[in-house]
Amino acid sequence: MTTSPVQVEALILAAHNAYESTRDVSPHVRRTWLTGVADALDANSDELVGLGQRETHLAEARLRNELKRTVFQLRLLGSEVVRGEHLDATIDHADPSWGMGPRPDIRRFSVPLGVVGVFGASNFPFAFSVMGGDSASALAAGCAVVHKIHEGHRELALRTGELVREALERAGAPAGLFSTIVGRQAAELLVDHPLVKAIGFTGSTAGGRALFDRVSQRAAPIPFYGELGSINPVFVTERAWSARRGEILEGYAASFTLGMGQFCTKPGLLFAPVDHDDEVAGILQREIASKPLTPLLSPRLREGFDEALKQVRTARGVDVLVAGDDSESPRPTVLLTSAEQVLRSPEILEQEMFGPATLVVQYKPGTDLIELARVLEGQLTATVQAEPDEDLTELLKVLRERSGRLLWNAWPTGVTVSYAQHHGGPYPATTASTTSVGTAAIARFMRPVAYDSFPPSQLPEPLQDHNPWRIRRRVDGTWESPVTDGETE
Amino acid sequence: MTTSPVQVEALILAAHNAYESTRDVSPHVRRTWLTGVADALDANSDELVGLGQRETHLAEARLRNELKRTVFQLRLLGSEVVRGEHLDATIDHADPSWGMGPRPDIRRFSVPLGVVGVFGASNFPFAFSVMGGDSASALAAGCAVVHKIHEGHRELALRTGELVREALERAGAPAGLFSTIVGRQAAELLVDHPLVKAIGFTGSTAGGRALFDRVSQRAAPIPFYGELGSINPVFVTERAWSARRGEILEGYAASFTLGMGQFCTKPGLLFAPVDHDDEVAGILQREIASKPLTPLLSPRLREGFDEALKQVRTARGVDVLVAGDDSESPRPTVLLTSAEQVLRSPEILEQEMFGPATLVVQYKPGTDLIELARVLEGQLTATVQAEPDEDLTELLKVLRERSGRLLWNAWPTGVTVSYAQHHGGPYPATTASTTSVGTAAIARFMRPVAYDSFPPSQLPEPLQDHNPWRIRRRVDGTWESPVTDGETE
Repeated sequence: MTTSPVQVEALILAAHNAYESTRDVSPHVRRTWLTGVADALDANSDELVGLGQRETHLAEARLRNELKRTVFQLRLLGSEVVRGEHLDATIDHADPSWGMGPRPDIRRFSVPLGVVGVFGASNFPFAFSVMGGDSASALAAGCAVVHKIHEGHRELALRTGELVREALERAGAPAGLFSTIVGRQAAELLVDHPLVKAIGFTGSTAGGRALFDRVSQRAAPIPFYGELGSINPVFVTERAWSARRGEILEGYAASFTLGMGQFCTKPGLLFAPVDHDDEVAGILQREIASKPLTPLLSPRLREGFDEALKQVRTARGVDVLVAGDDSESPRPTVLLTSAEQVLRSPEILEQEMFGPATLVVQYKPGTDLIELARVLEGQLTATVQAEPDEDLTELLKVLRERSGRLLWNAWPTGVTVSYAQHHGGPYPATTASTTSVGTAAIARFMRPVAYDSFPPSQLPEPLQDHNPWRIRRRVDGTWESPVTDGETE
Repeated sequence: MTTSPVQVEALILAAHNAYESTRDVSPHVRRTWLTGVADALDANSDELVGLGQRETHLAEARLRNELKRTVFQLRLLGSEVVRGEHLDATIDHADPSWGMGPRPDIRRFSVPLGVVGVFGASNFPFAFSVMGGDSASALAAGCAVVHKIHEGHRELALRTGELVREALERAGAPAGLFSTIVGRQAAELLVDHPLVKAIGFTGSTAGGRALFDRVSQRAAPIPFYGELGSINPVFVTERAWSARRGEILEGYAASFTLGMGQFCTKPGLLFAPVDHDDEVAGILQREIASKPLTPLLSPRLREGFDEALKQVRTARGVDVLVAGDDSESPRPTVLLTSAEQVLRSPEILEQEMFGPATLVVQYKPGTDLIELARVLEGQLTATVQAEPDEDLTELLKVLRERSGRLLWNAWPTGVTVSYAQHHGGPYPATTASTTSVGTAAIARFMRPVAYDSFPPSQLPEPLQDHNPWRIRRRVDGTWESPVTDGETE
């Protein structure tokens, strides 16, 4: 069953009406909606995890953790909304002696964009799907959401959508604030609809770019927040390699095989001064053998993985370091190439292998890692494995240009949801310089509006002098925090 | 003389190198560069204003004011940079009891994008041109700027560029941090170049959309911050019209004729319950007659204005309320139509007449202003002229959806540069939900980067625990202001 054009139109209109009737509700009310959804997902975790296991082959523990994260995210965004951070409220009182000439009373805050279209990802059936980061931050912003479900976990998505709608209704939110649609035609109508004001997307580079192009061609273009592809390079310094090669290889094997390598932050490249291939292969083989194997998320994803792996494996100068297999639950593959080869054919570094495979790039002692880093495209993450006293300033600057998150002696899989988190990076990692994880994700779905010379009685709550919502605001250049009353946590 | 492809390439490379060597300088150093440029423009104001008068026909007082604003803006952005607002520094210490599972130490701040291409506008030869809001905020962000000069004030632009380069060099900034290019081919090379990471543009909807489309088709798309067109509607309530019709018409005439109507915030539409056309025409005629007349900015702009005026004047149901003329310094025109006509043919509200013309939309008592507001496109501003105790909540909500700045009993021309200012609006007013005026403009040219699990000694200054740059930061969810030492003003 797909959603018909008539149904899509009705759902978008209902979403727009729900948005219009709720865009100015107080942050406390909005938080009750977010926590209502969180409670519902939590209360139905057994059913949801069961559905997820059946449809995605992901392990129960992994799915429980992902659901926990999703529920936590809703609660964290709720507390952020009550703080009013996302409103960015700024008040400049009239100032006759302002440096460029008299200044009128001017006040600004951010308002929700309207209806947001969200595309779910296959690999995170909870955290980047129906009520994942995009949907949760759009609702936190005050938007309505129409979610295009991913066929890879269709039953789970439909059931999650049902629970979300029921929870919102119980919490007092209007019908239409959240809905789900199915099918490609429905997705295209969503992307093209004049009442849709932003798109959140997590998926492949090819699919994401096609949607980005479509959105760019609208009569009125809208922001397209796409998280596309990333290879997530890891640079091991010579000193780190000498000091703790075994530990590094163990961490690498654990990270790249996690969830059968089906993470956008999977370390797909390891630059290391490999000298004894056999020893390295032995360690990796042993580590890989200790990991559980499952089928990949879907036949379609498996096909894409097989194709990508074949392309890299058969590229000039690439050898197999640890052979995988092509069984239903495929044994992970580690490929090997050289720094010289990579510098000659840097395009090999652009092929994401979404699944259980990774590429080791062997460099000779004395090699300039900066030169290697410079051939990389945009990434979600870049990691260094180094000794604490090494000076990697220049390498880190080059990696910073190409990556949204830098890690030091850590592994990129596992993305915490917090205030400082950033999950995004230069194209093709993402299509905008924004994050789809953490509290900063809310601002993507808002836009600023200034109120010029308004009488006090006509100002909206966030901009009234007595600050009825008790939010943090910038007043005449200086930030002021209201006295907290215990309600903000 | 236009800039050759070889020269453009060299300037972009030099800009990139200058950016790379300065992206991490301290805010205090960066402020000295901004104030150095401000000082140089100030010191050469007589020469610059003289050049401006010759090339643009704008009056001396107007140009002096605009230059004063441009200089002020540089100083304000300098003080903002020292506060570190634009860095958005956020620190989450490691937390083993974080709600979704142990949290690593994760810290984020925003870094400059790289080389920014800026397109100057014809109507603000200082404030939206060579060292206008886009260039100043890009430099404040830590970017390098390659500025495409506007042919309408070519000599002024080239001379301004020279002064800026000299001032930056004197202040110790590297050569290449700022440069100017001339010509359409050079502009296209700028927009397409892989090292260019964002575009700032102020100009026509047609020109802006063409560049937006070009940027969207890049292999790696970049943000295009375009400020395009706006008609800036004004809604006069029946009570305001009864109470102070004369005052409103005076304010309207002063605002729409200011600078010969060549402002993107010119009120191009007045919705009013006009009953006695003759009286209204008389007041407007008298007011218009008291305003100085000058030629328009350029022959090309004049041609576009004549064409747009003709289109609206000859549209069905449009009459001439106050006749202008087509002399070299054209007398302003006021056209008249009815609310019924506008609801039948809303496309008439989409035709910007950039120059001395405006359209009065006559509505009958009891007309639903909300219905009229709903037919409007995106705008930079929307104004209500109303009595203080009127309840316009619903009308303002509809206008808020369509506009970036709302005004109450004020006029939209005159855009102060401040913390709360917002100059932008839904498409086609702008192509992104950002402002090109005020301190918030800096963030357009930055992107966030997270540092995950870094040893203290390897963190960049803004994220070090002892806060060497003394900037405001969010630590574990709570914003902390450093003790100010007098240096921040």
